[in-house]
Amino acid sequence: MKYVENKAEEVKIAYIGGGSRGWAWGLMSDLAAVDDMSGTVYLYDIDFDAAKKNEVIGNGIKDADNCKAVWEYKAVSDIEAALTGADFVIISILPGTFDEMESDVHLPEKYGIYQSVGDTAGAGGILRALRTIPMFEEIAESIKKYCPDAWVINYTNPMTMCVKTLYRVFPQIKAFGCCHEVFGTQKLLVTALEEMRGLENVKREDIKVNVVGVNHFTWLTKAQYRNIDIFPVYREFAEKYKDTGYTRDVDENWMNRFFSCSEKVKIDLFLRYGSIAAAGDRHLAEFCPGDWYLKDPETVEKWGFALTPVSWRKEDLKKRLEKSQRLYSGEERFELKETGEEGVQQIRALLGLRDLVTNVNIPNYGQIPNLPMGAVVETNAAFRANSLSPVYAGNLPDEIYPLISRVCGEQERVVDAALKRDLDGVFAAFVTDPNIYLSVKDARAMFDEMINNTKEYLKMYF
Amino acid sequence: MKYVENKAEEVKIAYIGGGSRGWAWGLMSDLAAVDDMSGTVYLYDIDFDAAKKNEVIGNGIKDADNCKAVWEYKAVSDIEAALTGADFVIISILPGTFDEMESDVHLPEKYGIYQSVGDTAGAGGILRALRTIPMFEEIAESIKKYCPDAWVINYTNPMTMCVKTLYRVFPQIKAFGCCHEVFGTQKLLVTALEEMRGLENVKREDIKVNVVGVNHFTWLTKAQYRNIDIFPVYREFAEKYKDTGYTRDVDENWMNRFFSCSEKVKIDLFLRYGSIAAAGDRHLAEFCPGDWYLKDPETVEKWGFALTPVSWRKEDLKKRLEKSQRLYSGEERFELKETGEEGVQQIRALLGLRDLVTNVNIPNYGQIPNLPMGAVVETNAAFRANSLSPVYAGNLPDEIYPLISRVCGEQERVVDAALKRDLDGVFAAFVTDPNIYLSVKDARAMFDEMINNTKEYLKMYF
Amino acid sequence: MKYVENKAEEVKIAYIGGGSRGWAWGLMSDLAAVDDMSGTVYLYDIDFDAAKKNEVIGNGIKDADNCKAVWEYKAVSDIEAALTGADFVIISILPGTFDEMESDVHLPEKYGIYQSVGDTAGAGGILRALRTIPMFEEIAESIKKYCPDAWVINYTNPMTMCVKTLYRVFPQIKAFGCCHEVFGTQKLLVTALEEMRGLENVKREDIKVNVVGVNHFTWLTKAQYRNIDIFPVYREFAEKYKDTGYTRDVDENWMNRFFSCSEKVKIDLFLRYGSIAAAGDRHLAEFCPGDWYLKDPETVEKWGFALTPVSWRKEDLKKRLEKSQRLYSGEERFELKETGEEGVQQIRALLGLRDLVTNVNIPNYGQIPNLPMGAVVETNAAFRANSLSPVYAGNLPDEIYPLISRVCGEQERVVDAALKRDLDGVFAAFVTDPNIYLSVKDARAMFDEMINNTKEYLKMYF
Amino acid sequence: MKYVENKAEEVKIAYIGGGSRGWAWGLMSDLAAVDDMSGTVYLYDIDFDAAKKNEVIGNGIKDADNCKAVWEYKAVSDIEAALTGADFVIISILPGTFDEMESDVHLPEKYGIYQSVGDTAGAGGILRALRTIPMFEEIAESIKKYCPDAWVINYTNPMTMCVKTLYRVFPQIKAFGCCHEVFGTQKLLVTALEEMRGLENVKREDIKVNVVGVNHFTWLTKAQYRNIDIFPVYREFAEKYKDTGYTRDVDENWMNRFFSCSEKVKIDLFLRYGSIAAAGDRHLAEFCPGDWYLKDPETVEKWGFALTPVSWRKEDLKKRLEKSQRLYSGEERFELKETGEEGVQQIRALLGLRDLVTNVNIPNYGQIPNLPMGAVVETNAAFRANSLSPVYAGNLPDEIYPLISRVCGEQERVVDAALKRDLDGVFAAFVTDPNIYLSVKDARAMFDEMINNTKEYLKMYF
Repeated sequence: MKYVENKAEEVKIAYIGGGSRGWAWGLMSDLAAVDDMSGTVYLYDIDFDAAKKNEVIGNGIKDADNCKAVWEYKAVSDIEAALTGADFVIISILPGTFDEMESDVHLPEKYGIYQSVGDTAGAGGILRALRTIPMFEEIAESIKKYCPDAWVINYTNPMTMCVKTLYRVFPQIKAFGCCHEVFGTQKLLVTALEEMRGLENVKREDIKVNVVGVNHFTWLTKAQYRNIDIFPVYREFAEKYKDTGYTRDVDENWMNRFFSCSEKVKIDLFLRYGSIAAAGDRHLAEFCPGDWYLKDPETVEKWGFALTPVSWRKEDLKKRLEKSQRLYSGEERFELKETGEEGVQQIRALLGLRDLVTNVNIPNYGQIPNLPMGAVVETNAAFRANSLSPVYAGNLPDEIYPLISRVCGEQERVVDAALKRDLDGVFAAFVTDPNIYLSVKDARAMFDEMINNTKEYLKMYF
Repeated sequence: MKYVENKAEEVKIAYIGGGSRGWAWGLMSDLAAVDDMSGTVYLYDIDFDAAKKNEVIGNGIKDADNCKAVWEYKAVSDIEAALTGADFVIISILPGTFDEMESDVHLPEKYGIYQSVGDTAGAGGILRALRTIPMFEEIAESIKKYCPDAWVINYTNPMTMCVKTLYRVFPQIKAFGCCHEVFGTQKLLVTALEEMRGLENVKREDIKVNVVGVNHFTWLTKAQYRNIDIFPVYREFAEKYKDTGYTRDVDENWMNRFFSCSEKVKIDLFLRYGSIAAAGDRHLAEFCPGDWYLKDPETVEKWGFALTPVSWRKEDLKKRLEKSQRLYSGEERFELKETGEEGVQQIRALLGLRDLVTNVNIPNYGQIPNLPMGAVVETNAAFRANSLSPVYAGNLPDEIYPLISRVCGEQERVVDAALKRDLDGVFAAFVTDPNIYLSVKDARAMFDEMINNTKEYLKMYF
Repeated sequence: MKYVENKAEEVKIAYIGGGSRGWAWGLMSDLAAVDDMSGTVYLYDIDFDAAKKNEVIGNGIKDADNCKAVWEYKAVSDIEAALTGADFVIISILPGTFDEMESDVHLPEKYGIYQSVGDTAGAGGILRALRTIPMFEEIAESIKKYCPDAWVINYTNPMTMCVKTLYRVFPQIKAFGCCHEVFGTQKLLVTALEEMRGLENVKREDIKVNVVGVNHFTWLTKAQYRNIDIFPVYREFAEKYKDTGYTRDVDENWMNRFFSCSEKVKIDLFLRYGSIAAAGDRHLAEFCPGDWYLKDPETVEKWGFALTPVSWRKEDLKKRLEKSQRLYSGEERFELKETGEEGVQQIRALLGLRDLVTNVNIPNYGQIPNLPMGAVVETNAAFRANSLSPVYAGNLPDEIYPLISRVCGEQERVVDAALKRDLDGVFAAFVTDPNIYLSVKDARAMFDEMINNTKEYLKMYF
Repeated sequence: MKYVENKAEEVKIAYIGGGSRGWAWGLMSDLAAVDDMSGTVYLYDIDFDAAKKNEVIGNGIKDADNCKAVWEYKAVSDIEAALTGADFVIISILPGTFDEMESDVHLPEKYGIYQSVGDTAGAGGILRALRTIPMFEEIAESIKKYCPDAWVINYTNPMTMCVKTLYRVFPQIKAFGCCHEVFGTQKLLVTALEEMRGLENVKREDIKVNVVGVNHFTWLTKAQYRNIDIFPVYREFAEKYKDTGYTRDVDENWMNRFFSCSEKVKIDLFLRYGSIAAAGDRHLAEFCPGDWYLKDPETVEKWGFALTPVSWRKEDLKKRLEKSQRLYSGEERFELKETGEEGVQQIRALLGLRDLVTNVNIPNYGQIPNLPMGAVVETNAAFRANSLSPVYAGNLPDEIYPLISRVCGEQERVVDAALKRDLDGVFAAFVTDPNIYLSVKDARAMFDEMINNTKEYLKMYF
């Protein structure tokens, strides 16, 4: 890497999971949109062909009209080549296939357990963690070996447990986890300002929030726009929409229906607990006692959100594979469109090209004093040249402490037990999950069945 | 108070709830059993006649053969008279009557919620707290006014919330909560040493334990007898009895059946979580997810413990009233018998007559670093002349953190909301209780019904 | 205050000490240099005429060529008028006159104690604190009464003790202390990058530092420019200049000579303690054991810095008074020139017009875990709309902990005792000061003499 | 080890420094005085002959009239034999000889630095630490290898730095440091109770104190006897004796003169800082700014304590060697006399034969929240079967925080640098010592001279 005037050049990014048909393209778009960085992105994926296709797609971008920076893309077949000399490592992988995810999400239905996402928390989240943690152990070891000074940005779920694994294996790692769920809530607050106060042209980034909690179960304890405290505004908004829910655009498309959300969960949690729950309702619901929002499909419907079936994901993947082929062959032109993700801005800040304060997932150094030190939490942090420092967020408010502390502790415990390949230990945490309301015996039967169903990826535990 | 040689004389104890037919007699026995203290016990009770009877009973003790110390008992009809000049205040009251407790314990059964005790946690514990907290506010205010330097010993349940209220109202109070549940577990460990190692004559007090948690959901992270680490011994014991349970004496008496316990819950928790759950199974079960041990009466039976019906308590009270009459009239002779409680030893230690390290309920100064500062927790503490200092207990082990942190936070929150007379706030905590696994709507219906049923004692909330 | 598009208008700033001939003019310049804010500055000063003159001077600025924003200036004769409705309060006062400061700085010379500044630490700093603390009590009470939601920016020395007093009197105050000494060190690091690495055009703001310590005894534990860790660069620089010192421009002007500094103290501390001392040498020296740099004038000279005589300040004041008169009368034109201070940028950030991470003086919430909670410390903090949150700075490195913890504790103690009007308590802290190396008896004699000499301003202590 | 009824038998104690003519005999006496333990003491010393002599002396004790327990003594020539299988390890060594100590204590006089003891703090303490730390590294490594579960009791000075070294090298070590200085202060408080209140027969152990600080600079924040708060009593006592000092028996013996102390330092510190300084004046003085009590011999005399010359120690050693010979030959009979030390009671408590709360030196787990975590501090702790847990002591009072935090940090830093063999790092801490008030240059000259003078024992640093 080097700096030429106000630009960083020859930046090397290693992308683990670089064959992705989604996140990878988003990154390509975002990298092309800023004019003060250039370099090479090494695409590493266990599906080398996928990486290879993305190499071709990525290298085609420089010809786009509004491409502001030239990045070279290189598919590599071993992780050493990807990591050696890397300034940044991006991790965005799918642990296993959608068949395993289908088991994670839908097998529990047999036991009366419903899940809206199933990739972060609950039965599905933990099983996914069991597959993911050993992969992240390997990645962390490789980073320690090949690029210990690189900044590591994780996008993979279950976010908290992935980041925790990186730090457990290589405590000096410069890693953090990135998630856009808070942004969605900021947008909702923009809407509330528009609806209730008639404001216009409010930018998402100008909603300044204090974030506490764990990923996908994050909460805002302050939200401010200029001189406006948004809490009373949001309270009016919540009271107005608590029964009907709020949906900007009704999308009748079959595909999108499964991501629909009417913010009723979010509103309900706010009205009861006084802090602003700040993730999609599908995520929030999974961290709450199962009887609240996920008791059965009728309950889910009543709360106005959707259970995303993995069949949808499979269908969606097909579409993305087709699109990949079209992009690769040149049949379809790559459209540059900023994603709204902050990864590229974080990279710029770490390169010293700007300052940035935003929310991330990192170990607790005391930014949330009433959660355990070292537990991975989500709060704001200051990104500056080669530096990431948590911003003091304060205690979890008493009202939400019982909801969050338990899931924080549960996730820490799953990682700990999984690293020891101690499935009984994992189960002991599993059975405390808020969305697993079964007798211990039934929970064990379900756990064993879920493991058996995905055992292809769990050999290291036996 | 004064000291004459090695004795403390003219000690003044105020007993709030001094009309009790149970605890009060135990205290009388224990006070008569030590020879280095004497003084006066002021009996205050809203049932003045009951206090008056106990005055007579207490003053009769000095004639008993083995009475080692003379204590005078005086019933007083106002709290000012009881507290003024007191060196010690003992609080042991029944908030409301057994009719209210009947509602607390049994009304939830209509919603499918079963409770084995119903006085500490869960629906019953919280409703009881709603009645108790305003009483403790008054008591704390009176102590602040009449005897701010007195040591205050609470025996009333819900323990944690009672002690918390005292400190919230009068932060300088010298109060602590006392509970014998840990002693029961120490006795079980004695049994394990006898059964598995053939030891004899092991005394309960010689089992040295490290206590963490909240009252009635206390756990041991260390247990040592001389040079023996009891954990592996208890593991053998647990493996042996995990299916059958352990019951020393089968008591077919109808009355006792409702307190029976085969230690299966305790053993199950130990085998899953690695620390020793240290309270009666009836209490432990109520702090766990409802599906585990309290799903329905069959589940309870399977786990070998009993749901104590309040009808039993009413029956038992009748017997105790009869006994009270007999003791009062002289028909029955008061039998001096040490209770095994440590209250009197704690008093001696606070008077500087001995040192004592034992478990108590006090605010967290850091003795459990991963629970919130200020939350009322149960750990060991050192009692010395006019001083009570927590002993460092260490973090909750990761395995049990998710189980305990949530209930600790829930109880803190109930007190906070109850002090503000904020029933919505109380409900928001109520619905997070592990043994309330209902939809929010059903939970609210149950909550409202429970409140309505006991509204006589809840007028201050409306 | 209101927002019109991207501008904040009708912002009200209260300036306590608004008759100043220095800081006030700097603020006027800086306010005129940004184009997205406008409003009114209320000038309050015990010297009302001075405030009145500044009103005229300030209101003349809008005619300057490069004036980007129109601010109105109004002198007011009572603090209520200044504070009522204020969005921001700036405090920059001289406690007492230069006659008192002359006693603070020079009287100790009689006892062999030399001071290079005498306004922050040491004998002079403490005496100044005794005068200042009662004034800040009044200010804090007034803010509590008239504008409790205003942001309060303090520039007055002794910084730490002033900020502490504000928080002690009104714990909910939104106050922070601002100081430019770290900027000076950042500039020196720019120089080191230029000298040792040949870099050009490096901006002060682009040197990203991690700040720990107390005001004027602040240290950098990290310093980064883009991808360059500055510590090894600064080490080379320090080795090169440790004997000769580093002085960019030799200024033979009599007046400037007393502020000269050759960075030898700073370099010496870095080479011995491994962190970068980040304040002017004249300040740093006063926080170190007296024998190190301030033993006598010869020692001071050897270390290449100056003892600033108060006679110089008096002379300088005369010049500034003359200038004030010229500006007031229009004889001299007000020259707009940015000061390099960050106050105006902090105000913009608090108004939500930008984000800013910079160093401030606020109570310790855990940003420096090994200093006492609540002690006023200097670290980075994030300024965002109506929000100021400390950035986690980490422990003081072990090497400098002994140097800093003592002075941090000493200053906390002085405030505590002064608030109680307990001069014996103040003296007990005074005699632990690193630059007061006298027998207790001599120290007391000096202390009493210093108090007597400035008793006009210390009546409240008697 | 085994238990037979209420006795512990076959206890194995390893005594490192077992050739001692002082502490070793005290231990022999104390062991003989309790009737519920017996076993073997392995005497290991680099002076094997000395150990051998002590073996003979120790084995002769069983014939004494009042010997209650039979302990066997065995001199061993290698540390492995001493440690293997040990239940307890006692460390009480002299690092180097009195020649080195002579340099430690007296060489600084040439630079105007006087020391009253010179074994804990200041120039002498640090130089002694430099010799001792490498020895303790070896001891810690050996304990880790041969008896990792043994309890380790250190008596060696510099206490704090010795204990710190043990934990740095072997973090799981079960070690603590024992010191009787607090007992001396408890005795003084007994005297105050007698003098000012006419009490009689008060036992030292019944003065219950809350201890904070570092070894030899320990302070009491509470002192209670039964229902008497001793602070106001001690204040009267202090006011009475502040000018004359308090000396119970004037001892004109030449030898004792050098340990004399009139408590004037202790009283002065109490009257200024409000907490009770709780070590001998000779120790306390060395932790204070040099100008206070140790400026020169006249100052020392004025404060009524003595500079203990090493010539005295050499003379004393001669006498002890003669006594050793007489005891060994049988010419003199070993007199059993309890020492008042608590080591044997601590051993009994760790064996589960009693409970004990007393002061020890161990790492800070939060028992003193405003000192750094992990720093070795002195507070109370609870000794129970195989367990030692700190008792919460609370924050250092603000008044004494500046005095203690700096020396705590200084000692931590010396250990850290010495373990890295970094003499520049050691010097950087050395020059911050309160009793080294020299220019950096002079301090370095003195430091180098002191090192050179004792280089025989410091080879590992070069």
